[in-house]
Amino acid sequence: MYFVSDNAAAACPEVIEAVLAANTGVVGTYDGDALTQRLDGVFGDFFGHACRVFVVGSGTAANCLGLAAMVPPWGAIVCSREAHIQVDEAGAPAFFSGGASLILAEGAAAKLTVDAVRAAVAGMRGDVHQVQPCVLSMTQATEYGCVYTPDEVAALGEEAKRRGWRLHMDGARFANALVHLGCAPADITWRAGVDMMSFGFIKNGGMSAEAIVVFDPALAGTLPHRNKRAGQMPSKGRYAAAQLLAMIETGAWERNAGAANAAAARLAVAAGDRLLHPVEANELFLRASPEDSAALRAKGFEFYDWAPGEIRLVTAWDTPEAHVQALAAALSEL
Amino acid sequence: MYFVSDNAAAACPEVIEAVLAANTGVVGTYDGDALTQRLDGVFGDFFGHACRVFVVGSGTAANCLGLAAMVPPWGAIVCSREAHIQVDEAGAPAFFSGGASLILAEGAAAKLTVDAVRAAVAGMRGDVHQVQPCVLSMTQATEYGCVYTPDEVAALGEEAKRRGWRLHMDGARFANALVHLGCAPADITWRAGVDMMSFGFIKNGGMSAEAIVVFDPALAGTLPHRNKRAGQMPSKGRYAAAQLLAMIETGAWERNAGAANAAAARLAVAAGDRLLHPVEANELFLRASPEDSAALRAKGFEFYDWAPGEIRLVTAWDTPEAHVQALAAALSEL
Amino acid sequence: MYFVSDNAAAACPEVIEAVLAANTGVVGTYDGDALTQRLDGVFGDFFGHACRVFVVGSGTAANCLGLAAMVPPWGAIVCSREAHIQVDEAGAPAFFSGGASLILAEGAAAKLTVDAVRAAVAGMRGDVHQVQPCVLSMTQATEYGCVYTPDEVAALGEEAKRRGWRLHMDGARFANALVHLGCAPADITWRAGVDMMSFGFIKNGGMSAEAIVVFDPALAGTLPHRNKRAGQMPSKGRYAAAQLLAMIETGAWERNAGAANAAAARLAVAAGDRLLHPVEANELFLRASPEDSAALRAKGFEFYDWAPGEIRLVTAWDTPEAHVQALAAALSEL
Amino acid sequence: MYFVSDNAAAACPEVIEAVLAANTGVVGTYDGDALTQRLDGVFGDFFGHACRVFVVGSGTAANCLGLAAMVPPWGAIVCSREAHIQVDEAGAPAFFSGGASLILAEGAAAKLTVDAVRAAVAGMRGDVHQVQPCVLSMTQATEYGCVYTPDEVAALGEEAKRRGWRLHMDGARFANALVHLGCAPADITWRAGVDMMSFGFIKNGGMSAEAIVVFDPALAGTLPHRNKRAGQMPSKGRYAAAQLLAMIETGAWERNAGAANAAAARLAVAAGDRLLHPVEANELFLRASPEDSAALRAKGFEFYDWAPGEIRLVTAWDTPEAHVQALAAALSEL
Repeated sequence: MYFVSDNAAAACPEVIEAVLAANTGVVGTYDGDALTQRLDGVFGDFFGHACRVFVVGSGTAANCLGLAAMVPPWGAIVCSREAHIQVDEAGAPAFFSGGASLILAEGAAAKLTVDAVRAAVAGMRGDVHQVQPCVLSMTQATEYGCVYTPDEVAALGEEAKRRGWRLHMDGARFANALVHLGCAPADITWRAGVDMMSFGFIKNGGMSAEAIVVFDPALAGTLPHRNKRAGQMPSKGRYAAAQLLAMIETGAWERNAGAANAAAARLAVAAGDRLLHPVEANELFLRASPEDSAALRAKGFEFYDWAPGEIRLVTAWDTPEAHVQALAAALSEL
Repeated sequence: MYFVSDNAAAACPEVIEAVLAANTGVVGTYDGDALTQRLDGVFGDFFGHACRVFVVGSGTAANCLGLAAMVPPWGAIVCSREAHIQVDEAGAPAFFSGGASLILAEGAAAKLTVDAVRAAVAGMRGDVHQVQPCVLSMTQATEYGCVYTPDEVAALGEEAKRRGWRLHMDGARFANALVHLGCAPADITWRAGVDMMSFGFIKNGGMSAEAIVVFDPALAGTLPHRNKRAGQMPSKGRYAAAQLLAMIETGAWERNAGAANAAAARLAVAAGDRLLHPVEANELFLRASPEDSAALRAKGFEFYDWAPGEIRLVTAWDTPEAHVQALAAALSEL
Repeated sequence: MYFVSDNAAAACPEVIEAVLAANTGVVGTYDGDALTQRLDGVFGDFFGHACRVFVVGSGTAANCLGLAAMVPPWGAIVCSREAHIQVDEAGAPAFFSGGASLILAEGAAAKLTVDAVRAAVAGMRGDVHQVQPCVLSMTQATEYGCVYTPDEVAALGEEAKRRGWRLHMDGARFANALVHLGCAPADITWRAGVDMMSFGFIKNGGMSAEAIVVFDPALAGTLPHRNKRAGQMPSKGRYAAAQLLAMIETGAWERNAGAANAAAARLAVAAGDRLLHPVEANELFLRASPEDSAALRAKGFEFYDWAPGEIRLVTAWDTPEAHVQALAAALSEL
Repeated sequence: MYFVSDNAAAACPEVIEAVLAANTGVVGTYDGDALTQRLDGVFGDFFGHACRVFVVGSGTAANCLGLAAMVPPWGAIVCSREAHIQVDEAGAPAFFSGGASLILAEGAAAKLTVDAVRAAVAGMRGDVHQVQPCVLSMTQATEYGCVYTPDEVAALGEEAKRRGWRLHMDGARFANALVHLGCAPADITWRAGVDMMSFGFIKNGGMSAEAIVVFDPALAGTLPHRNKRAGQMPSKGRYAAAQLLAMIETGAWERNAGAANAAAARLAVAAGDRLLHPVEANELFLRASPEDSAALRAKGFEFYDWAPGEIRLVTAWDTPEAHVQALAAALSEL
């Protein structure tokens, strides 16, 4: 019974069907096929705002190609100390941008606040001797499974705007956040000041495609060059575009995220006061002694040892109901 | 009737089936799944030599991540003036390597020869004021659809070895070359001095995965870091690995390349003395006046205007027999 | 009366004389002149250990070219949160290395300790998803004017060695540290595990040249290429080499640093319990209210507002004795 | 008797005196001193056009930092196959720009022509699969000692403008070109379409400072950040600025270049039909058999073997008259 990572989940039926449906005959290459060409429109409708959409092959590429389009090589990106771009992308922000730095802000549950951002850059000078912060990057939902409300996003958006910075969103689990909030996609993106985002599909039932969504057209111009140069413009673009279209147009994004969130919510109830952070998406972080962990593993549960005395559980769109029930029971019994 | 590019072809049934077969339940993430873990062994058997295999999402990534593992940022790569890495990868060799240069050698049909390589670096100095050539990159089959024989590869391998350089092969159409030659894979790779290659599958019936194959284990160590940092390590590795395994293990690589080559050969006969280069793989370059081109297009054929008075025709694994017949007839009639 | 920065001091007479003496007739270009060729030997004698010496034009270049020779683009450098490479080099570590990151360790007075280093990398994983720490960079004297003892350096050296990391020293004020300690140069460099260092001369009475000193010959090989490519190999190398040789061979390094340290020590006595850090080199950090600062400025003293309620005073080799006396008196009167 | 390189010449008296004069007391650091602050004005007067001037430590840095401010990482710079940035800067254009390529144009005496530029980019496409040419870089005087007339520069300027490219000038020997032409500096720079240039002083009697001169203010904004990050912003800026000011304000630039040109012209007469290129600055390229070379060396002349049967002679501002006479005589006798 697997609760290690949502990257281990399969692709959902709609994605598979879309890939199969795309596999007919010759079509335009790179971004010249009809599916890729529909992306801007479909996502524009989804967000209620004109946007440019680029398909890439991983969240790392989505995040860091996007950031590179907003930060000069001597610039800096303010993010949480726990941000995926800091912790789990092997230096990709510097690679894609030609050297930009990360400035780490503190905050509970990997959540940025305006105060934390201010503290992170307090005392920085605008002179040429220092790197120049110019992008704020937030993760929605955060790396600890917490969700920014529209007001929280907007507060960061205002702070960014006030400073002349850009606001970037790592939306690896954006669908989970959106389902949790029940708001319009616009409410936590462009309307709240987000200039560009990574819209993650792979963890939520996709196969191999992520999207960079650009809300400010002024930021889109370099991305075709950046993506091609980085080998992130698939030559048979249809298979990637098909996945994204399927997720959006069939509503699979919502159903999948809803299922994963619901499973996590159920486990959260069982976990009770072991919870280290509110459970608002599909991840749980729990206090668990070595004995607790061993007991869970003895019952057949797989999960990640997050830190001494802490474990991480992740649900996915396809986590079997029976596994969730069993784990909930096991957590209750601990 | 489409003869523009083999990137426009669909994925072949074996690839599709393998992707479907891979879509069952949870598996290890990134390169931790059973399919990805089988790659080294399967390709090792294919080549008759231990190798390390890395899956990436495009030929550009395969070529340039591989090259980056062999060339320092102040190094240089000797390649044909017509090489894909020079002409069609948007500066990716410099991007992935941190600045390495290309030194362009001349040669008929985009084919390197030892003499052309020597001429390209004649007069270069080994001092710190110049970039330092240290890799030879050849394309098999070449960008003009010509194939290096085992002896030709070996001659380049010897020249590289003699100079202390590495030999890299862009094998975007390696399967086509192999089918043309009918030799063992080893004969035109490691046995002939190739240290690392891009083994292309996408043009030959794949969907979205290419392989970097490393024959010299000393060159493999940095690639996991390079790939991850470049967003070229898919989080659901199984779908990419499945494609490569299917192509190799079912023999689809050979059947597909054989079909494309055969179609090209048939067209070559019809093209007669219009041919600008020998047709040894799945591309034809023809002399064609504007009137010729217009006539072909009027009959429903799509193709690429290569240069004034020259057109390019590309066949694929799934080019319909009827289209080939029709085009052959049309060419004969010109 | 100027106490803002030692970069504002003039060049000392020995340096000027050496530059004049070097200005005779034609000599070899780049590193081909007799002065440049003497650098390895003279510094080897100074340190009591064979070394390779490279002349560059700034401390930023010295630090970051050196670091780049020790860290891969996906690597990381552990340094103090207050380190010059983090705070005042505009992202140069990432620029020269092709993307390496800094991992910030805490510590009083910008001083690294083994515990702080361990804490900084605690929880980091050795997998490909994270940057890989592989260099420890310490500043001697620190950015707060404190000096590592030989034992403190050696402890860091052992920790680095144990982890398979390299130890780098930013010696922008190395001479000040050495004078403070009164030990042999070897005691706080190669003998204590330092693999490479920046030996700073400009702040200590030089004009325009800094040295990269490489103690481990295995690390020197790429630097000629790196330096040339970065425009950090002066075409008339003699003028830079002359400065370094003069500083070492005349003992100006020691006299100058001694003078600056003595001035700082005298001010430290006057500053009393206002001191925020021990004064062991040529910098003082003091508590000073806005009224205090205004009072000092009213008397003609120039200095740097370090932080709210804190000021920085820097002495130099040529700070006039009368200015030091006057400032000491003014500090006593506060 | 030395004719190998003008980098081997000493610094001229005005430069030395200016450095000495600058060596008084404390002054602002980095670019905060009065000398550095005068640069824009003095060069503005010299060129008859407002400009921004940045001091760096080498011609490589001047060229490639300037180019980096005009070309994106996926861009390309069109230059002569013999350009210094191609032949002798160790890949610095890619390093500073983050990956930009060079496109090599042919041309006699390393001189670009509009036709050669057009030929170099003929057949290039504007799509994302190719690097995008956006800067033309010319060397004045060329690497073969030839000088572009105002009309020739203007023709390149018009071609660049027509294409939306920028025009860059490597002016390592700009003073020699200017003296040869006897025109106003404006005639071969901004008035002829040059957007940015490297103004070389080191070869012409300077010591260690070169200038980047920016005529289009829109291009200057990133250079302070780029220069600092590259360690090319000297902390004691006065010594570098003093050199440039002395060269311009005393007219040493003109006298020095005039002397070097005159010496070369005299040798050119003696060389007669051995000359491979017109002698318009301070370099001569001659046909010389191995016996000829040996004969010259036997008489005490040092020079560079350019290619089989070809030698290069370079004069400098301080080449002794007697050496010139002797070499002229020796050439006549060959």
